[in-house]
Amino acid sequence: MKRVTFLLVAIAAMAGLVALIVPSPGRADAAAAAPYVTEMPQGYRDWKWISSAHEAGNLNSLGALLGNDVAFNAFRDGKLPFPDGTILAALHYHYVPSDENNKIFGQVQSFVPGAPTNIQFMVKDSTKYAATGGWGFGHFQDGKPGNAAFMKSCFPCHEKAKATDLVFTRYAP
Amino acid sequence: MKRVTFLLVAIAAMAGLVALIVPSPGRADAAAAAPYVTEMPQGYRDWKWISSAHEAGNLNSLGALLGNDVAFNAFRDGKLPFPDGTILAALHYHYVPSDENNKIFGQVQSFVPGAPTNIQFMVKDSTKYAATGGWGFGHFQDGKPGNAAFMKSCFPCHEKAKATDLVFTRYAP
Repeated sequence: MKRVTFLLVAIAAMAGLVALIVPSPGRADAAAAAPYVTEMPQGYRDWKWISSAHEAGNLNSLGALLGNDVAFNAFRDGKLPFPDGTILAALHYHYVPSDENNKIFGQVQSFVPGAPTNIQFMVKDSTKYAATGGWGFGHFQDGKPGNAAFMKSCFPCHEKAKATDLVFTRYAP
Repeated sequence: MKRVTFLLVAIAAMAGLVALIVPSPGRADAAAAAPYVTEMPQGYRDWKWISSAHEAGNLNSLGALLGNDVAFNAFRDGKLPFPDGTILAALHYHYVPSDENNKIFGQVQSFVPGAPTNIQFMVKDSTKYAATGGWGFGHFQDGKPGNAAFMKSCFPCHEKAKATDLVFTRYAP
């Protein structure tokens, strides 16, 4: 009887160990189908500049779109759709007057990035993000990703820029 | 007599050749003392992004400051004064609304770079440009450098930003 108990405990322990190591099919599916980017891509601040933009109104932001090498080359060469491996990083800041510059110019003329507001990413992976045009969308505020409800708004809006593979920004020559 | 003439002609020819090969001291001095940048640095469009800026008023521009690796590292690490070898490239464009974006947003919200206006450079070489705070200034429109009279206005204005080594732009984190 003791031997049987030991065997059952051993089997249960091994099963537990296996459960820890191998993610269940349910979990793996959920991760693969995650419709948005939940971790910030590394090294984006060193990427190349695609363009700048000012968004007025409620956003009131000034920023830049940077791209990794795959992204930059595609933009520069006018290659559409963007190839898998493309990553775009939109760095947004409060749109503020530069008091120090304006003092020198003698008028309110110079507007610059103030405190950072958020960073948004678009990651091209036509398999992983097949349901959203091949793009995974990311939004990070203070390093934390936007929640699922918020992230649902990305694709329907970007989908309207279908002619440029869901990307609003044009390359500044 | 013929032999003397030949000798004189030969000497004159050689002197002419030497004059073509070796620049006269006067010319060399003039080039070394050129107070501004007359040739566009190579590869600047691939450099890293320092910040974006909108200049309102007469300039009405939107653009970005890019820097070579020496410049980028100094900005990122808050290193002042900028080391020799620093090159900054300010890419300027007309500040225009993006009709295609605004149509999607349903309001005039998005302002982007239009046609390029000019590109300005600052090259740090504390020996060559000792007379202008160690900086050589450059201004190019359609690839052509600004004339001497125009270029004289750069230093007196940038000199007012002495606290940041004559550079107006701050690094956007």
